[in-house]
Amino acid sequence: MSENSAASQVDVVVVGAGLAGLTAARELRAAGLTVQVLEARDRVGGRTVNHAIGRDAVVETGGQFVGPTQDHILRLATSVGVATFPAHDIGSSIYVKNGRARRFAGGVPPDPISLPDVGMLVARMDRAARQIPVDRPWDAPRAHEWDTQTLATWARRHAATDGGVELLDILLGSVFGGTAADVSALFGLAYVAGAGNEYTPGTVDRLMSVAGGAQQWRFVGGSQAISIALAEQLGDAVRLGNPVRRVEQYSDRVVVRTETESWIAGSVVVAIPPVLASRIDWSPTLPAAQEALFQRMNFGGLAKCEAVYSEPFWRASGLSGQALFRDSDVAVSSMFDNSPPDGSQGVLMGFVGTWGARHRGGRNWSDGNDAERRGEVLRAFASAVGPRALEPTEWIELDWTREQWTRGGPTAVLAPGVLTGLGQCRDAAFGRVHWAGAEHSDYWNGYMDGAVRSGEKAAAEVLSTEGELSWNNAS
Amino acid sequence: MSENSAASQVDVVVVGAGLAGLTAARELRAAGLTVQVLEARDRVGGRTVNHAIGRDAVVETGGQFVGPTQDHILRLATSVGVATFPAHDIGSSIYVKNGRARRFAGGVPPDPISLPDVGMLVARMDRAARQIPVDRPWDAPRAHEWDTQTLATWARRHAATDGGVELLDILLGSVFGGTAADVSALFGLAYVAGAGNEYTPGTVDRLMSVAGGAQQWRFVGGSQAISIALAEQLGDAVRLGNPVRRVEQYSDRVVVRTETESWIAGSVVVAIPPVLASRIDWSPTLPAAQEALFQRMNFGGLAKCEAVYSEPFWRASGLSGQALFRDSDVAVSSMFDNSPPDGSQGVLMGFVGTWGARHRGGRNWSDGNDAERRGEVLRAFASAVGPRALEPTEWIELDWTREQWTRGGPTAVLAPGVLTGLGQCRDAAFGRVHWAGAEHSDYWNGYMDGAVRSGEKAAAEVLSTEGELSWNNAS
Repeated sequence: MSENSAASQVDVVVVGAGLAGLTAARELRAAGLTVQVLEARDRVGGRTVNHAIGRDAVVETGGQFVGPTQDHILRLATSVGVATFPAHDIGSSIYVKNGRARRFAGGVPPDPISLPDVGMLVARMDRAARQIPVDRPWDAPRAHEWDTQTLATWARRHAATDGGVELLDILLGSVFGGTAADVSALFGLAYVAGAGNEYTPGTVDRLMSVAGGAQQWRFVGGSQAISIALAEQLGDAVRLGNPVRRVEQYSDRVVVRTETESWIAGSVVVAIPPVLASRIDWSPTLPAAQEALFQRMNFGGLAKCEAVYSEPFWRASGLSGQALFRDSDVAVSSMFDNSPPDGSQGVLMGFVGTWGARHRGGRNWSDGNDAERRGEVLRAFASAVGPRALEPTEWIELDWTREQWTRGGPTAVLAPGVLTGLGQCRDAAFGRVHWAGAEHSDYWNGYMDGAVRSGEKAAAEVLSTEGELSWNNAS
Repeated sequence: MSENSAASQVDVVVVGAGLAGLTAARELRAAGLTVQVLEARDRVGGRTVNHAIGRDAVVETGGQFVGPTQDHILRLATSVGVATFPAHDIGSSIYVKNGRARRFAGGVPPDPISLPDVGMLVARMDRAARQIPVDRPWDAPRAHEWDTQTLATWARRHAATDGGVELLDILLGSVFGGTAADVSALFGLAYVAGAGNEYTPGTVDRLMSVAGGAQQWRFVGGSQAISIALAEQLGDAVRLGNPVRRVEQYSDRVVVRTETESWIAGSVVVAIPPVLASRIDWSPTLPAAQEALFQRMNFGGLAKCEAVYSEPFWRASGLSGQALFRDSDVAVSSMFDNSPPDGSQGVLMGFVGTWGARHRGGRNWSDGNDAERRGEVLRAFASAVGPRALEPTEWIELDWTREQWTRGGPTAVLAPGVLTGLGQCRDAAFGRVHWAGAEHSDYWNGYMDGAVRSGEKAAAEVLSTEGELSWNNAS
């Protein structure tokens, strides 16, 4: 390939201006390197997106919650002046089953048959997770056994009732945008193991809970504010609307091409979803095993819907605004009170499985028209907090499976066989190319904290190789 | 997007000059339509590739075997003058376990412990397969149960010993380029159901066997000869070295763009592997569920290796040249006598799993250097037919996972949840775009016969919509 003579030169090109890419760029610039961030979208933030709902308030249509042990995203937010506030967690939650709503307190729904079973299943998941080294799940003593079965199979063996397994599916609907049948048991248990940090082992409770868990806090001004602040610091070093189409590696440099520009760099950090990374035109082509892995790091199918009301009316009835929906014909898996910190408006947010065909007679939520999609979600909301939910002042939805530059949500979920067969090449540098993104983290994989961790790690990798690889040094 | 004023016009653009695309092109032209076939590679044939070994003989480094009930590929071959001959199947086969080679006759290895178990497992697979409608596996009575578990889990439940399951894995190594843990039980059993035709139900035996099965015959002159003959008939209508990068659909036409050319058509048939189809720049973007499905139609990891000798020396010892390798540190899963029809040279062919990391202490066959890869395969050959196998006159290998325009082999294998969750949109036309390729067939999915069937079906779809959709009629 001929090299574009008008190519610009920089120490490091970062592909993707989500939290991972922007974190990497910031670290690299702080170390004195020149950096260029290339972003396909016309905004920064990746899977974090703010949506203004008036009166200076925002809701997020992407990642939004943070919790204890997510120290990397919390530290980063603090450093750019973005504060947290507690997610609303006062009052009773609602469990909807067979169209009937029942109140409950605490994290576990009032299902007399399933309840003890879920407790046992969770205890067994925690115990199994402790046997998994988070950075080498394929070395777990029972890795082979757990990676040759689905998490659904594993759960069925460790639960006494179908109800326990079904409840696990409801919970995973929001975590994975899929069910326990979509992932290997090893991946699911490793995900639990990663819901902690180097000092605190992961647990199901920390993954699922509001109080003390991954849904404990939200960011004042919305999670995207962090990426916006980082991008402001980086200034001209961030270019939007510029999807990278081709990456060419040579012995002494990398050439990164968008449709209109070329950049020559010493190193590249690719911080986009793995499936999209595999779609870049690579020269030479990606190593076969890494290509195969990235192909298989498919995101689940999740949408986020938000209904705005003049006030959080459910609070007056002693409701938290949280609900779990267990009926198979309801696409919403869970609901949260997503109102602004001052409660000046009311917002209900629902996680919606975009492909429910297997449970819903071949009907996908995504396939409905605007009125059908909205109607289905609002009826679910109303079944939990009453008919006022049917009349929001504003309706916002983001179906992540329709986002060209993400194509699924919220994160990569690995099928059986993938982790033991190919997992070891997940983060392996490909020549001068280093990988980042929430899927490239051992702890809080798929979360904002994982994204920040991965960006820090990729930057450290680049810096450790800079002496030998920097384009500037080689020239 | 602005339309290229220099675009050429044609009734139908076919993307991909493998068996599926060429079959579709031939049918469409026979119906009086103008057709343009655009192929990324500098050759036709897709996953069929001939390699000349001198003295007018060829071996195939891609698909090569055909068998009873594969009427569509057989009819096509006959129509272009390509004859079949029986694959060599005379003599004893070899079963290598714990480094020890034992002779056996018939399809089932002489494993005293596993043998009865394999027989029972196969009978149960056949019985389960008969419950699956091949065109709607998600409607099978136990579809949910079978699609929430891996085939490994299913097999373990229906076999008495681990040995039975391990043997199944060896057999699947060649069929899927993967193991029973990589696929859902529903997909695996539907694959068996599809190993037949509209009149003859599929069975494990027809899938696995030489005599009476999918490995019964080979093509004189090599399987690629069929595509080469089709391409000759199509003449200028086939362009090589022209990967399609972008497809734009409008109300009255489609614009197909390569790096240098644009074509305006009434319809498009896309006949390339689904993962690669999902990488085309689609405008509008692919429907979310179809994109999600295509992402998940990952190919297995398979290489094909051929060693050429001056003669098929193993035949003199009463050996068929067929072998099964059960040792986990051997990347080769099976071996065949792949000599030319007249036996004037000897050829041993091995199916090799490219990613064996899970079984081989993190070592992939693909990662070895030339000498290591070759040495490992030849030592396996020698363990079956003796040390003369170590000194071939020629060595040929094709690692399909390194092929930029395939990226895996031999076919798409579906993980749990995919078939019931997304399978229904596999063949759904996307506006003016119709899908073909071996993965888009109900019968003999992943085989040459499936490819031909899919091409015929896509052509019929185009013809049935031509009145309303043809670009020529609309203009």
